[in-house]
Amino acid sequence: MTVWLVGAGPGDPGLITARGLELIRRCDALVYDRLVAPELVAEAPTDALTISRDGLVQERINDLLIDLGSQGLEVVRLKGGDPFVFGRGAEEALALAEADVPFEVVPGVSSLAAVPAAAGIPLTHRGLSAQVRVVSGRSADGEVELEPAVARETLVLFMALNELGSLCERLLARGLDPSTPAAVISRGTCPDQEVVVADVREIARAAEGLPGPALVVVGEVVGLRERLRGTGDESQLYISQSVG
Amino acid sequence: MTVWLVGAGPGDPGLITARGLELIRRCDALVYDRLVAPELVAEAPTDALTISRDGLVQERINDLLIDLGSQGLEVVRLKGGDPFVFGRGAEEALALAEADVPFEVVPGVSSLAAVPAAAGIPLTHRGLSAQVRVVSGRSADGEVELEPAVARETLVLFMALNELGSLCERLLARGLDPSTPAAVISRGTCPDQEVVVADVREIARAAEGLPGPALVVVGEVVGLRERLRGTGDESQLYISQSVG
Repeated sequence: MTVWLVGAGPGDPGLITARGLELIRRCDALVYDRLVAPELVAEAPTDALTISRDGLVQERINDLLIDLGSQGLEVVRLKGGDPFVFGRGAEEALALAEADVPFEVVPGVSSLAAVPAAAGIPLTHRGLSAQVRVVSGRSADGEVELEPAVARETLVLFMALNELGSLCERLLARGLDPSTPAAVISRGTCPDQEVVVADVREIARAAEGLPGPALVVVGEVVGLRERLRGTGDESQLYISQSVG
Repeated sequence: MTVWLVGAGPGDPGLITARGLELIRRCDALVYDRLVAPELVAEAPTDALTISRDGLVQERINDLLIDLGSQGLEVVRLKGGDPFVFGRGAEEALALAEADVPFEVVPGVSSLAAVPAAAGIPLTHRGLSAQVRVVSGRSADGEVELEPAVARETLVLFMALNELGSLCERLLARGLDPSTPAAVISRGTCPDQEVVVADVREIARAAEGLPGPALVVVGEVVGLRERLRGTGDESQLYISQSVG
């Protein structure tokens, strides 16, 4: 018996790992985040216990995983993106370790690079970006000081949609060039993905009303989008609904 | 016909995406990086053309992809990690776009978070790390100035093993606390993974002789490893050799 902390990927169910899918297909219990694709939940065996974590506080989830794991079940804890990138996976892993419940982490495709990719934006590109900085809107609101992107750096903001206006103002006040391009990608890799591009002065207004979850990218790599968005119907590009 | 730029993941073949594996299994031609797991190359149809990119310069690879794509073949370009995180995937995508060859990006699990995870190190953790900065050893040697990690920031260095001594010296000279913990993870997620942990003063010496590829993590999250490395035989933890 083991609790598997599995990354579900950024939204598109085809972006789960082969290993993660195999574990879902043979689990006894599946505890899943609200943003996980329903196609992945449907891959669990019909007699498996499936539990949405919706409405449960973190401590209750930890207790639930310990409880299920202690019963000798094969438990998959399916988390959006990657468990260890702003996913609070380490909190769950620590709780399991302290309770002596065996666990294993199966990394997932993080939204970090996959969501910009789905919008035609690479995080790094020779001559344009040689460094990436990743902040969450929430942590920038207290835990760390939000520094503007330096030259040849791409800034990626998680969970920043609600505070985007004030975050951009702080970046500008700290010296970020106001003409730096920015993109907001809403529901990235999903069929209803939307992308808004504007300079950092305008992006908050341009992105108003977009549904979450959304990722914000600030930096010169955003300018590659026009050349990289590709050659097909954009809403079909980069999207795969198959789960293999 | 399409050229699919597919991320193979960090090493463990089970960490390819379900979608990426499906594309390999039905491709006409597979062009793969040296570090891609042989198990994944073996998943191509027996009559598919399989071409190692070993020894080819980037321009030759671009030309090869354009050539194969123009012949109406389904081409999978299988790249280690994620194509758009220090993977030069955007260079290949731009070359295809300019040649009017249809392409699609299928993101992969980047080493960025998966390799630290395989060593029991989360990139973010409440109270310890609220921000991640990602640099490559190569770009830090010219394109960007290597700034030391700020408080509550995790620094991740790609391709930094060879210059680790001088990179750490520069970080210390710029004010990084010498007792900051660091880890070097060699061949992360593979069965022969090795992990070395030391403070940033000692890490270059401690990691001497480790085989590449390796990822370097600097920051307080490294200290979680002792509590998170889990409950089993470490060489088995987080490793899955299945390809689903």
